[in-house]
Amino acid sequence: MTAFESLFARMQELKDLSGVLGLLMWDQETYLPRKSEPARASQNGTMQALYHEKLTDPRVGEWLAKAEAEPLSDDQRAMIRVFRHERDRAVKVPAGLVKAIAEAQSHALGAWREAREQRTFKPFQPALAEILKLRRQQADAIGHDGERYDALLDGYEPGMRVTRLTPVLQSLREKLVPLVATLSEAAAKKPDAIAGRTFPKDAQWKFTIKLLEAMGFDLDAGRQDLSIHPFTQSTHALDVRLTTRIDEQNPYPALFGTIHEGGHGLYEQGFAETDWRTPLAAAPSMGLHESQSRLWENIIGRSRAFWEHFYPSLKQHFPAALDAVSLEDWLRSVNRVARTLVRTESDEVTYNLHIVLRYEIELLLIRDQLPLDELPGEWNRRIDALLGVRPKDDVGGVLQDIHWAWGEFGYFPTYSLGNLYSAALWKAMRRDRPELDDRLRRGDLLVAREWLREKVHRPGFRTSAEERVRAATGEGLTDAPFLEYLKQKYGALYGVAV
Amino acid sequence: MTAFESLFARMQELKDLSGVLGLLMWDQETYLPRKSEPARASQNGTMQALYHEKLTDPRVGEWLAKAEAEPLSDDQRAMIRVFRHERDRAVKVPAGLVKAIAEAQSHALGAWREAREQRTFKPFQPALAEILKLRRQQADAIGHDGERYDALLDGYEPGMRVTRLTPVLQSLREKLVPLVATLSEAAAKKPDAIAGRTFPKDAQWKFTIKLLEAMGFDLDAGRQDLSIHPFTQSTHALDVRLTTRIDEQNPYPALFGTIHEGGHGLYEQGFAETDWRTPLAAAPSMGLHESQSRLWENIIGRSRAFWEHFYPSLKQHFPAALDAVSLEDWLRSVNRVARTLVRTESDEVTYNLHIVLRYEIELLLIRDQLPLDELPGEWNRRIDALLGVRPKDDVGGVLQDIHWAWGEFGYFPTYSLGNLYSAALWKAMRRDRPELDDRLRRGDLLVAREWLREKVHRPGFRTSAEERVRAATGEGLTDAPFLEYLKQKYGALYGVAV
Repeated sequence: MTAFESLFARMQELKDLSGVLGLLMWDQETYLPRKSEPARASQNGTMQALYHEKLTDPRVGEWLAKAEAEPLSDDQRAMIRVFRHERDRAVKVPAGLVKAIAEAQSHALGAWREAREQRTFKPFQPALAEILKLRRQQADAIGHDGERYDALLDGYEPGMRVTRLTPVLQSLREKLVPLVATLSEAAAKKPDAIAGRTFPKDAQWKFTIKLLEAMGFDLDAGRQDLSIHPFTQSTHALDVRLTTRIDEQNPYPALFGTIHEGGHGLYEQGFAETDWRTPLAAAPSMGLHESQSRLWENIIGRSRAFWEHFYPSLKQHFPAALDAVSLEDWLRSVNRVARTLVRTESDEVTYNLHIVLRYEIELLLIRDQLPLDELPGEWNRRIDALLGVRPKDDVGGVLQDIHWAWGEFGYFPTYSLGNLYSAALWKAMRRDRPELDDRLRRGDLLVAREWLREKVHRPGFRTSAEERVRAATGEGLTDAPFLEYLKQKYGALYGVAV
Repeated sequence: MTAFESLFARMQELKDLSGVLGLLMWDQETYLPRKSEPARASQNGTMQALYHEKLTDPRVGEWLAKAEAEPLSDDQRAMIRVFRHERDRAVKVPAGLVKAIAEAQSHALGAWREAREQRTFKPFQPALAEILKLRRQQADAIGHDGERYDALLDGYEPGMRVTRLTPVLQSLREKLVPLVATLSEAAAKKPDAIAGRTFPKDAQWKFTIKLLEAMGFDLDAGRQDLSIHPFTQSTHALDVRLTTRIDEQNPYPALFGTIHEGGHGLYEQGFAETDWRTPLAAAPSMGLHESQSRLWENIIGRSRAFWEHFYPSLKQHFPAALDAVSLEDWLRSVNRVARTLVRTESDEVTYNLHIVLRYEIELLLIRDQLPLDELPGEWNRRIDALLGVRPKDDVGGVLQDIHWAWGEFGYFPTYSLGNLYSAALWKAMRRDRPELDDRLRRGDLLVAREWLREKVHRPGFRTSAEERVRAATGEGLTDAPFLEYLKQKYGALYGVAV
């Protein structure tokens, strides 16, 4: 066997183990019996340790060194690049630190829940301090050019750096603040047409399945189940599992949640068959993955063209709730711009301001430039400056997301990258497929799936996210297509000049 | 660390991996998307190989040797004994043979399906010859005292030997043949009271959940789902998963299938908490496991006392189907003795004759004393001699079970051992709990669960199956309690002298 062949066998083994870990996670959020959680934690820990053992095995290091001297194809070199990125990050962090982080996460999750119950930040502060300290150590162990945050960001968005990201988010911030003011004022003039209606569960479930089928999500190579916090988890490109959440008083979590997860799911189903058991069957970043869910959920799923086709069918599913609601009312309702406190409930215009807030604070925290005593106040001042709203207490403020309790610093900006990439891809799709709007208006969503499959899904992890977007659109990371999209759509919808 | 501590850590790791393998299997039979089967086969293969690698690791052999010289408790010695039994069997079989068997199984399964489609044994014959050859080699690799079948039987029923089993099954055979003749004749005099009725799915599902709750199966530490072939699979004592099958034309698969799997499930939930992550949290044999499912399904679940309580509720669940069916009719229907061709559809009186047939033929096959050309004819002659019925073709004869296509030789007798043990345990339970019948008649099934938990479940794998039965009942393997049970029950039910 050549060194590459040995390496390749190990990559396949790790891909299988990662699929099994995916199943454990899916099961935990869907069907695991209540009392079994500690047992599952132990099984999960054993599997994670095994994965780590197989990844950091010293022989793998030798194979990597030797393989690079062997005659390899471009794809084989790409596999090595991706694999080395993952392995280097794993090898550089000492086992003791990995263990300390896991323990600190577990402790911080408990403290975060406790703090939320008391509705104040204080009980969370010591745990947050500890996990921040460990994450800084981890960043130093991985290595960086003086900006620790880069080492963390690189774990979610390989290749992205603070120097590249900050100006883009600053520009976005400056343009969004006045846009939000104009649009939220226009939106507030009319009441929400669907408030107070009831949407029966069974009809919601049926309609979400209909949506997934229309999107071309293959339900013989995936499935949808219910969970409290919807997610997408695949064990393989032929086994992609989505979840959704149904609220009878509000159809949006199910409708737009399903389209969102369906967007992630199409990505996972779209990898090239020849890549399936290799590191290439993966998105090159969380941001690019998110671009798929956002493009489907917001740009397609909240568009006039989409609902021109689907709204009559939706009305048939919910005759009592929607009988008196016109298409115009519906479009305004699903695209309601409002200054609110909570990121996960915010619309696509205000959403990125919530991310800018978190990104700016995370940078200060990782750089150790913001004392934790001042964090809640800093959060409140900043959200007020961005959106003109102030939390009543820390649950509506600094305690609202679980990410920091998980120790996830560097993750939030990938949401905004997803939004920016989604608009850039959309612009290029319309350029390449002039018939796009007409076909969407006829309910033919496969035209979008096929373009995305060719430009984004099939290439997998052969290049970085930004290179992939550049190859598809002609330009890299920029906020221009996103702002252009918002202005066109919302200017028309609310009849205002923006 | 002492050698035992190292060993103990490995045992826990293997227990976790075995739980994960259990989840993969459960998922495959319940929720796995259709197209994902090959992907899952690969993940499963990787996990099996990892398990094997961790089990046969040479360091484990060193720890075992050293640990036996360390001061250990009785429980620690028991763990070593159980672990060594599993490991010895794994170590002795060369990797090449393991691989050849896996390939032959896969091939034989395909050939068996093909043969069933053609309704003749011929297409299965070469594949069966190959897998028999490999199983004989495996038996020789494991080692035996001249009787190869012992080495295979020992994989399912540790400690059991042909010299011990044959006389028991011969005695059973001699006594069952005339009993079946008498009872099937008596049963044939009345038509089946529930034939042709419909039992709606939802009501069947609800009733099965009610039954599980009554049995004391903890649905917060387990669950029930649907699958084509019902089974019990646990990932942990706190995560025990049953499946059932619902047929609207026939309520028995769901009703008695659920009680059967519930019996297995109570065993898995009943291990001592201190044993959970050790080899002691396991049944000492397939036969003893089967004794639990049979005891619940047949001895309790088809008894008069049981239905005196549950039949009124069953009638409420199925008013249309059961309105005109009396309790007497119902009891005769669920205890109908009939000479039929198919083991899985047979009643508890004829059932063991189907096993005797398979056991006798398996012995000839493993001893290489029956040319495969003659196998279908031999099957047909023997089933005729035992039950007075002859298959129309091989699907109703030698092709009816999947076991041989899986390469499972030595498994069938564990079903009969389960039946014999179940009656012995029942007899002892009645001796120890004189109030048993009264309590069952009131729907209080926990009295049975508690006795079984104490005598069978909690001790786990501390002794062999037969020693466990002896400790609970005062006697080892014998057919007397089973025959006594059949005669009492069926004599009364059909009003015949037996």
